Amino acid sequence: MSTRAERLAGRLAEADVDCLLVTGRVDVRYLTGFTGSNGLALIGPQTRVFATDFRYGEQAAEEVDPAYERIVATGSGELLDLVGEALDTGSLRLGFDDRVLTVREHAQLRKQLPDRIELIAAGDVTRGLRAVKDADELERIRAAARVADEALAEVLAQGLIGRTERAVADALEAAMRVRGASEPAFASIVAAGPHGALPHAQPREVPIAAGQLVTIDWGARMAGYCSDCTRTYAAGEPSAHGREIHALVLEAMRAAVATVAPGAEGVAVDAAAREIITAAGHGEHFGHGLGHGAGLEVHEPPALSRRSNDTLRAGEIVTVEPGIYLPGELGVRIEELVRVDEAGPEILTALDTELTVID
Amino acid sequence: MSTRAERLAGRLAEADVDCLLVTGRVDVRYLTGFTGSNGLALIGPQTRVFATDFRYGEQAAEEVDPAYERIVATGSGELLDLVGEALDTGSLRLGFDDRVLTVREHAQLRKQLPDRIELIAAGDVTRGLRAVKDADELERIRAAARVADEALAEVLAQGLIGRTERAVADALEAAMRVRGASEPAFASIVAAGPHGALPHAQPREVPIAAGQLVTIDWGARMAGYCSDCTRTYAAGEPSAHGREIHALVLEAMRAAVATVAPGAEGVAVDAAAREIITAAGHGEHFGHGLGHGAGLEVHEPPALSRRSNDTLRAGEIVTVEPGIYLPGELGVRIEELVRVDEAGPEILTALDTELTVID
Repeated sequence: MSTRAERLAGRLAEADVDCLLVTGRVDVRYLTGFTGSNGLALIGPQTRVFATDFRYGEQAAEEVDPAYERIVATGSGELLDLVGEALDTGSLRLGFDDRVLTVREHAQLRKQLPDRIELIAAGDVTRGLRAVKDADELERIRAAARVADEALAEVLAQGLIGRTERAVADALEAAMRVRGASEPAFASIVAAGPHGALPHAQPREVPIAAGQLVTIDWGARMAGYCSDCTRTYAAGEPSAHGREIHALVLEAMRAAVATVAPGAEGVAVDAAAREIITAAGHGEHFGHGLGHGAGLEVHEPPALSRRSNDTLRAGEIVTVEPGIYLPGELGVRIEELVRVDEAGPEILTALDTELTVID
Repeated sequence: MSTRAERLAGRLAEADVDCLLVTGRVDVRYLTGFTGSNGLALIGPQTRVFATDFRYGEQAAEEVDPAYERIVATGSGELLDLVGEALDTGSLRLGFDDRVLTVREHAQLRKQLPDRIELIAAGDVTRGLRAVKDADELERIRAAARVADEALAEVLAQGLIGRTERAVADALEAAMRVRGASEPAFASIVAAGPHGALPHAQPREVPIAAGQLVTIDWGARMAGYCSDCTRTYAAGEPSAHGREIHALVLEAMRAAVATVAPGAEGVAVDAAAREIITAAGHGEHFGHGLGHGAGLEVHEPPALSRRSNDTLRAGEIVTVEPGIYLPGELGVRIEELVRVDEAGPEILTALDTELTVID
């Protein structure tokens, strides 16, 4: 079993670089094990260097894979100034993550590097590696999804009508923590009635009323890894229109999940849901992409959307989350977390997707 | 009273730009009121444009200052593609935040902009404006500091010895939420004994033992604004060496706070603490900067450090947080949140700084 750094080193030729400068916090964690906020790594066929600052010297000694040479800078910040010294041999094509490095950091880096080192944008190499989850990562995401499911079930058992969106969100987050989540994977959404027409609504101090649809979008973070799930419930008996929209979104979600397979294009999986929603006259009410990868970040490659350039690979984990948003009236979104597998899509969320009435 | 956008427009000439593209999330919130995750603003003497994507159309209508023309993109992401269209008049020097814009975003932006628009790095303009807090901001930070104080007092009343670092951190965060904090301003640090020698230690499932020093670094976020405070307590009677180190850090902290005034240089305030610690032979055990601004971000300008180029201005709010870290033995850090004022430094934290023994 090769290490992550070895697998990365094996992909550098594709990106036409000799060595990669890794500066994204999540990428650094993925490759080296370091969980602090200020670290970088240099990885090449023969290169394993990790650098952090004074504040994290002891933490790095505990966490970082011993395959890495460790550099601890005196004084905080400015780790980029160490890169030149760490790469003191001949000419080099050095890849960097152009999705993460800012224009200022790039200018600073260029200024301190000798001319023999060429900087090449190579921002997709590590993220591409991260998209396919290994067994340990899958187990963490499964655990996060399970905790999120159990937490929601507990919260729903206390009913929805009359509780504020904020109270439901707080209870949900507390229930995830009690079950071992280190934190919510993102700010939980609980959005009732017309507020549900805001896809990224923030929970309000407003009670949920009977007859409203309630969209809940939440996830747990366990051992660094995120789950992500959405359900739309009916707080008491919903309108016929609410039932109709829910059934349409559910049909679209299921159709898209059925297309999730190694080799499927992100554009095609998106289209499987979008065509159903568009045919029903709601294309303009589904304004976001269908889904995204999830792992150390709650949004990571691959993308399932009209603009995606990604093709699914076995072992990737993606969300499938179509929605219909009717301004001033209601919103419905239903989201599954799905593992791409040769044997067919595996859904990691256990909660029912049919419209459930909660009092 | 001029608006924030008006004040920003008044500073553009200093940065030698005609118009500023604002893409940092916090800067966008500060200037427009928008709290979503995907928005940008264009601000010039005659220009007020705000853009977001479909997901946030309704939220933007509720939140964004009506002085801005609002653009809602269909489809998510790629807001930068709208910039060229929004600026359709003649040649222009367009500033951008080089601290925030990534190399990839910059390349994408350059590609879609017509040649008549020149891109100029201008990353410090908005941050410079944000450093000086207005009355509303000050009130929010005061409230956050008060909630943090009260939460810690409640947690300490339950004692420290025998509780795990994690349990103390969880109780502290829960107590802040109960008092109205939307979240902790950052991941709380509770670090006992030798673990306190890690300046950014993560709380462990390890009970605090009698005789250990315990460093607690925590803050509340209220209405978007952060507090930040650190105290080091003694869990039961500490060692003589622990008392000595605490007294030294306290002396350094007080000396530095006394120099906080309009016109003081960040380097000089840092030096006021650092000289005392260095004179006592612990210079190498104080490896981080003395402090930083706090507001919408828990770390923002100005910097108080050996590398700072900042000069303090009235109305800025900074942390003063010297520390001494003795690997394998103990750590002490004491942090005040201080408002820069002509009448003298105003400390926003009410908790005692003397070494307090907690059982």
